[in-house]
Amino acid sequence: MPTPAVHIGPQDDPQLTEAVERGGGRVVPLADAEALVVVGGHGDLPDLHDAIRWVQLPSAGIESWVRAGVLDHDRTWTSATGAYSTSVAEGAVALLLAGVRGIGRAARATTWDGEALDGVQTTLRGATVAIVGAGGIGKAMIPALLGLGARVLAVTRRGLPVEGAYETWAADRARDVFAVADHVVLAAPATADTAALVGADELTALGPQGWLVNIARGSLVDTDALVTALREGTIAGAALDVTDPEPLPDGHPLWTEPRAIVTPHSTNPSTLRVPLLAERVQENVRRFAAGEELLGLVDLDAGY
Amino acid sequence: MPTPAVHIGPQDDPQLTEAVERGGGRVVPLADAEALVVVGGHGDLPDLHDAIRWVQLPSAGIESWVRAGVLDHDRTWTSATGAYSTSVAEGAVALLLAGVRGIGRAARATTWDGEALDGVQTTLRGATVAIVGAGGIGKAMIPALLGLGARVLAVTRRGLPVEGAYETWAADRARDVFAVADHVVLAAPATADTAALVGADELTALGPQGWLVNIARGSLVDTDALVTALREGTIAGAALDVTDPEPLPDGHPLWTEPRAIVTPHSTNPSTLRVPLLAERVQENVRRFAAGEELLGLVDLDAGY
Repeated sequence: MPTPAVHIGPQDDPQLTEAVERGGGRVVPLADAEALVVVGGHGDLPDLHDAIRWVQLPSAGIESWVRAGVLDHDRTWTSATGAYSTSVAEGAVALLLAGVRGIGRAARATTWDGEALDGVQTTLRGATVAIVGAGGIGKAMIPALLGLGARVLAVTRRGLPVEGAYETWAADRARDVFAVADHVVLAAPATADTAALVGADELTALGPQGWLVNIARGSLVDTDALVTALREGTIAGAALDVTDPEPLPDGHPLWTEPRAIVTPHSTNPSTLRVPLLAERVQENVRRFAAGEELLGLVDLDAGY
Repeated sequence: MPTPAVHIGPQDDPQLTEAVERGGGRVVPLADAEALVVVGGHGDLPDLHDAIRWVQLPSAGIESWVRAGVLDHDRTWTSATGAYSTSVAEGAVALLLAGVRGIGRAARATTWDGEALDGVQTTLRGATVAIVGAGGIGKAMIPALLGLGARVLAVTRRGLPVEGAYETWAADRARDVFAVADHVVLAAPATADTAALVGADELTALGPQGWLVNIARGSLVDTDALVTALREGTIAGAALDVTDPEPLPDGHPLWTEPRAIVTPHSTNPSTLRVPLLAERVQENVRRFAAGEELLGLVDLDAGY
């Protein structure tokens, strides 16, 4: 088995260095590298030379690199898709449950009102939760949702059956789930097809008991339509880990909207992320050394 | 099959009237009743006459009637224990997840701070969650906790095995779980044995990553010790649906403690409660008519 020569950059990272070594590689200067593990998530990239055959990006969503135009067909690119799935999925379930059970409102209260949450709370038991973009993260939500007594309607690119979902729809029907589901979780990649997927019509279809959870990207939701829907009670609420614009500016109506919960793009916090990325790097270095297919291969045409 | 004569009081309730009738009974004035379904949860009771052989209380915890001294050995008493289990269990999981994933803090934020939750969030995946008092509610939490990748340590009166828990301990070891579990959920009845079960020692044993969830009764926790532990970071946080004193007075430090989430005794809100109580009443009226054992029989000596 060869020992892959891997560069970690632009910055060094001791946990990733260990991961490369546990995977059977060695960490080398950029000039000597045949593979690159990218640290930091904002489209930065060291200068690539021709000997670099594989680049491991550190995040699941890679649109900042797509926008920067740095992805090429000269080598293999992998994202961290799936590596953080369980952590992000847990955050998404937490947001949905916090919404449905009124915890966002309760957390802001400073006086005891025993009836404050009476008309606000509903239950996931028996409810239909649609997961739009049931990839790694969406699939990782399913055991928890089933454990809570919900049923899951999955939406995937091709609509092939997803384990644990009672039905799976193809992505071209994504807008139709809002009329069928009690609650909708957005976990789809940000692409041209998903831009402003959720507008006034979808929110009206979701209805006054429905929660919208967005852990994907802010661009999937028309923020103005959402603010209006929340203010008018068109939907029960929205729990957003991502927003458009992001960061959400001070004074934005979502900060003070009682039906909204905003977390600062934090369902995948660094304290939980680094150990999971290190696991992925270790596994992919091992696969690279063995000539096996890497995890998280980027589809350059699809853009994710 | 006889048609039980059931009184509903002190107030009438149309949903419970329907439930009595669906269970095969008829609703009658108090003087003609052989059974009583009590409406309202504060220890009130119509005057009982000797012909009343069964009293259905409307809540799972019955200490207000125990304190009022109205429970007697002259008839059968049933509580609503178990009827609300799934709803309360969902609320408890929501509180625990909201705590562990930093949603209580996030809900209070009015500015975007991408790192605000970095050191705050942990995960239930791989964590040990102790359920102190794994009766109907505690057991109903287990599928969701397992779906989230946690493992469950159950504590029950006698320590008999609980399905889904990797271990079950008897109640006399309840204080010992704080050193073993990552997080502790209190779901035990309020009795002399559980009063101030959680004090400074237990909180210290739980440790700086640990969340305490109380959906049982406020009396199980020494509030002063808890306030100190939260202020000093002895534990990660507390999510409380019940408090001591209750209602929690305005200005109490728990209202503004960043590590605390308080819900106003609302994991069992009336909007979710009434349909579940009606189901229980229907089933118990059917059993009463058939001479079968009723659900939720009160153990007068144990006081629940």
